[in-house]
Amino acid sequence: MSGTVVRNIHRAETATIATLERLGVATVHEAQGRSGLMQPYMRPVWRGASVAGSAVTVLCHPGDNWMIHVACEVLKPGDVLVVACSSENTDGGFGELLATSVKARGARGVILDLGCRDAAPITEMKFPVWSRAISAKGTVKASLGSVNLPVVCAGVSVKPGDVVVADDDGVVIVPRLDAAKVAKAGEEREKKEAVNRARLAKGELGLDIYDMRKNLADKGLRYIDGPLD
Amino acid sequence: MSGTVVRNIHRAETATIATLERLGVATVHEAQGRSGLMQPYMRPVWRGASVAGSAVTVLCHPGDNWMIHVACEVLKPGDVLVVACSSENTDGGFGELLATSVKARGARGVILDLGCRDAAPITEMKFPVWSRAISAKGTVKASLGSVNLPVVCAGVSVKPGDVVVADDDGVVIVPRLDAAKVAKAGEEREKKEAVNRARLAKGELGLDIYDMRKNLADKGLRYIDGPLD
Amino acid sequence: MSGTVVRNIHRAETATIATLERLGVATVHEAQGRSGLMQPYMRPVWRGASVAGSAVTVLCHPGDNWMIHVACEVLKPGDVLVVACSSENTDGGFGELLATSVKARGARGVILDLGCRDAAPITEMKFPVWSRAISAKGTVKASLGSVNLPVVCAGVSVKPGDVVVADDDGVVIVPRLDAAKVAKAGEEREKKEAVNRARLAKGELGLDIYDMRKNLADKGLRYIDGPLD
Amino acid sequence: MSGTVVRNIHRAETATIATLERLGVATVHEAQGRSGLMQPYMRPVWRGASVAGSAVTVLCHPGDNWMIHVACEVLKPGDVLVVACSSENTDGGFGELLATSVKARGARGVILDLGCRDAAPITEMKFPVWSRAISAKGTVKASLGSVNLPVVCAGVSVKPGDVVVADDDGVVIVPRLDAAKVAKAGEEREKKEAVNRARLAKGELGLDIYDMRKNLADKGLRYIDGPLD
Amino acid sequence: MSGTVVRNIHRAETATIATLERLGVATVHEAQGRSGLMQPYMRPVWRGASVAGSAVTVLCHPGDNWMIHVACEVLKPGDVLVVACSSENTDGGFGELLATSVKARGARGVILDLGCRDAAPITEMKFPVWSRAISAKGTVKASLGSVNLPVVCAGVSVKPGDVVVADDDGVVIVPRLDAAKVAKAGEEREKKEAVNRARLAKGELGLDIYDMRKNLADKGLRYIDGPLD
Amino acid sequence: MSGTVVRNIHRAETATIATLERLGVATVHEAQGRSGLMQPYMRPVWRGASVAGSAVTVLCHPGDNWMIHVACEVLKPGDVLVVACSSENTDGGFGELLATSVKARGARGVILDLGCRDAAPITEMKFPVWSRAISAKGTVKASLGSVNLPVVCAGVSVKPGDVVVADDDGVVIVPRLDAAKVAKAGEEREKKEAVNRARLAKGELGLDIYDMRKNLADKGLRYIDGPLD
Repeated sequence: MSGTVVRNIHRAETATIATLERLGVATVHEAQGRSGLMQPYMRPVWRGASVAGSAVTVLCHPGDNWMIHVACEVLKPGDVLVVACSSENTDGGFGELLATSVKARGARGVILDLGCRDAAPITEMKFPVWSRAISAKGTVKASLGSVNLPVVCAGVSVKPGDVVVADDDGVVIVPRLDAAKVAKAGEEREKKEAVNRARLAKGELGLDIYDMRKNLADKGLRYIDGPLD
Repeated sequence: MSGTVVRNIHRAETATIATLERLGVATVHEAQGRSGLMQPYMRPVWRGASVAGSAVTVLCHPGDNWMIHVACEVLKPGDVLVVACSSENTDGGFGELLATSVKARGARGVILDLGCRDAAPITEMKFPVWSRAISAKGTVKASLGSVNLPVVCAGVSVKPGDVVVADDDGVVIVPRLDAAKVAKAGEEREKKEAVNRARLAKGELGLDIYDMRKNLADKGLRYIDGPLD
Repeated sequence: MSGTVVRNIHRAETATIATLERLGVATVHEAQGRSGLMQPYMRPVWRGASVAGSAVTVLCHPGDNWMIHVACEVLKPGDVLVVACSSENTDGGFGELLATSVKARGARGVILDLGCRDAAPITEMKFPVWSRAISAKGTVKASLGSVNLPVVCAGVSVKPGDVVVADDDGVVIVPRLDAAKVAKAGEEREKKEAVNRARLAKGELGLDIYDMRKNLADKGLRYIDGPLD
Repeated sequence: MSGTVVRNIHRAETATIATLERLGVATVHEAQGRSGLMQPYMRPVWRGASVAGSAVTVLCHPGDNWMIHVACEVLKPGDVLVVACSSENTDGGFGELLATSVKARGARGVILDLGCRDAAPITEMKFPVWSRAISAKGTVKASLGSVNLPVVCAGVSVKPGDVVVADDDGVVIVPRLDAAKVAKAGEEREKKEAVNRARLAKGELGLDIYDMRKNLADKGLRYIDGPLD
Repeated sequence: MSGTVVRNIHRAETATIATLERLGVATVHEAQGRSGLMQPYMRPVWRGASVAGSAVTVLCHPGDNWMIHVACEVLKPGDVLVVACSSENTDGGFGELLATSVKARGARGVILDLGCRDAAPITEMKFPVWSRAISAKGTVKASLGSVNLPVVCAGVSVKPGDVVVADDDGVVIVPRLDAAKVAKAGEEREKKEAVNRARLAKGELGLDIYDMRKNLADKGLRYIDGPLD
Repeated sequence: MSGTVVRNIHRAETATIATLERLGVATVHEAQGRSGLMQPYMRPVWRGASVAGSAVTVLCHPGDNWMIHVACEVLKPGDVLVVACSSENTDGGFGELLATSVKARGARGVILDLGCRDAAPITEMKFPVWSRAISAKGTVKASLGSVNLPVVCAGVSVKPGDVVVADDDGVVIVPRLDAAKVAKAGEEREKKEAVNRARLAKGELGLDIYDMRKNLADKGLRYIDGPLD
């Protein structure tokens, strides 16, 4: 299916996406059973960015960013471009001009399993980009890949229309059909965490809050008074 | 000794720890004969943090942060939690809730030979954390490790009560019994460096200040006027 | 030729260097045919630095920074020190004192295919340094290398007097004799990009601006309306 | 869906699998349009192994091999076990005992995106295993994963019943429904290659056999007689 | 303590060492509670080597093998040289001449957290060496380290006289005072494994042999008949 | 100069090349002052290969092997193809068919700063190849690079006609004009090593043979009888 562009995709509901964005990567990842997290080499080009949106998926080849140009045409406002590469590569296939373009087309952010160039102007634009490297290495426009077919990006399977959530902790993918359920689970988790945070802040121990002492003892944990030296 | 917690440890003197903190990683590392420095993959979650404290050591297993919860109970104000892992792993075994907890218990910072999640809130809290990665990957609470037994963390042997010094340059460990001696050596080094810095700032050469010319000549260094092309 | 220092080198014209600095790494790299870019592990010690200058080249050995001291003497105002290492090493062979020294001698920046220590004071000094790592690991002064002979630094061949351009995107080397030509090509590229940026910002597509549709069709790209699921 | 085991899966036809095995990884990968290849860190525990079979997929967690034991029960003769891990880990979750077990249940080989222990006895058994590392590091049996649900293994999406082909070149996955088509395309490719190999062995050039000269000239390739130095 | 050589060390009993050698790395590592295993980047220069012996520990600096020469003098027959390095380095500090020397002095093998050169003659000599890399890169003799002081090698703390066990699975360290106990535990493990191996070879499942079904059910594992697609 | 092929190059004398081949990588690297060694990630596809020859240099782009086909035409018997890549990439740009071709044209071996596919048939052919990876990943023929211009390959500057020496220890480059001198220095080194090897084999210490005791004492090395524990 190389050489294929799918123009239209299903997208999750806007409200669901907004909830997932507010919850952030760590909570969403837990809420969907600790799955869907991209590998930790995916880092924001600038710290502090935080987005969620519908994945428009792109498959490129090493040193070649042609398909990103093709993908620009099918972006809708609120989308997040997710660019996979057919083998490991850090070339700078995305930079200021493409950032200008996808921003003009309404994209909320870009996820690159390749390099990003123009780190300074992209930081100044405050356009959110996550990438595996920062590299000025230029790319060619020679090989067809795909747009809006399923890809594997930074170790995670991404289907077009899945929800992408990204912040300083990295990037997590929520399958579209699970998005509402995950958003709800995340909100519940958030509430519990707020209670626990308050108790922990007062000096209570997780050992007690999470009721761990019995399990630890059952496993055989033993305490020694010490010091040993 | 897996499954063991030592409640009490010896600690270095507060004044010594304060001196080591002020001296910083690079000076302390030199002052103790260029030893004790953790591998350079250990990076601060946010730039500008700087701490020193007594090591409370933890051994976890990959993908499992149970022992960090156990360690919270034996922390004393001024301590620095040092978390080793039994094999290479970047999962996010420490995040905002644990940061809230260890801070409430008085810890001054955390050193993780694993991943850290919740990078944004931890940065906002200004709680000092050094880790090998930033990753939202969740962890389980299933396997016993140890607390306050000797560990190897990021290539360095750490005994409970050793002094941990950490800043933007990384993390260095000072054996507790050497701490006073190292602090003193560091202060002497600091004085010498202040003099040399002033001379270098005026344009004097290290070649002259450190009296290197004869050694270089003895080794056979030769000068050519050039240019060669 | 180990153990050799060349005192004098040819340098590119100041105006050319200034133009290359303004253009920045990404544009210069493209303007000289996508060559000369150091590997992307070379990162600025602090974000936002941007310099260009004539390369004074140094070859060190792992864990040994002696030749950097030697190189200080042959630096001229406007130079950029480029330090290669005879094998992969991250030890902190350059820190605050050497930064003070090379700054006093007029150097505009330093490129290290080794580690940099004293990240905090160097950031405070706003002295521009790119390195493969931040590490406090100290070095010795025991082995001769070379100054102002050709080196390979971070994957790029550098001859003394070549122009070094460095910013948040990394480091690119322009051969001295090509510098004027590359500067001119870069300025032309800059003008074209300004026009394209404006068009892209209005929402025009790269597909149309760069006239890609026919090539894509010739290669066999096919569009499907979708959604597929 | 963590904590789920699917007992039965569809499998490709035996004859198709046999053809794909004979063709080998490189030919199969090309025949399906250069897709499906696992990352090159996946290496055989011993050189010379070569297998194909139906994927029984397993998802484990770092340092935990419990689900491999669970998977043994649903293996059918001719299957290949494909073990993914929820984050990067090299612990030795598979060794001689499990090799004995899966071999007894008819498995033809094992693909591990984690470590393999007992390299010597597995080599002696001539049981084919590919892994990301060789490591004796033991694992626990504490966390549920899944068996026969889709996984991402070494950068490739694998669904249960997909055909796994593995040899000294690595591991490639052929989607089950494409297997017959890919086998056929591979056989055609093989025939063409046999002809070309014979011509190349006589000293004919790829430039002529593949008719590249015109394309090269159109792109602007120019020849210089040289030598240049 | 840099610049120190300890001439004499305590060693474990010969019979214990012989037992540990026969048991091999994987069994020994399990028998001592899954600890003491060096990182998996430590690989044999040639496959099939297998040794155990008393550790003579060396600390070198990057690019400098001087202390290995010093260590030769304190080697006793049956020892294994364990060479740590003060920072990450792959230079070839050990080759055919040193192999000839340590073999003549009775060493049974060498563990290098640096590079090994002369891979072909060392393979021909059948002298057992484990290293982090194969590299011809030469080293200098300029900096003092230590011999027979505790070191951290490939992530493991090694004291002089500890028992080193190494084979195709890697390298494991057994603290000297634990050696007899670990040898005994390993032999018991070996017996159990022999029984289990026989049962597994007949097709019995680990699920039943290790009685896992109840635990899996308690954790919530559920079975689906499938196929799902 | 991208898009340029130089047809003819100067080559070193056959006898010199033969001497360098016999001496091997480690000796040649030392004999030319510890320079010219490629990074240690360059490994032979099969162990035991050993070659020397004149470098025909190729620059490819990631995922593109077009220029290797172009280079075949300018190979002369005895040459070694040296393939650099404009950024880090492991795609399998060289396999059995190209091996057949370059062998038919008289090449003695191939050095690839990219991946090699068809590891099994190349091993069977006993055609010597060194590469940074084994990978079946296919490549395209879309971008011009160069043939017989200077390149940087695996960290070393290589000019066409330089002598390539490769064996199990890796790959070293000898500048053509230095080849005779280096061959002679290598032969002298070889003689000295033969004498030293014989002395070391008898149990004499390098400390005495190389007269190191005084230097060690001058540096401050001190001996303690021990044991310390």
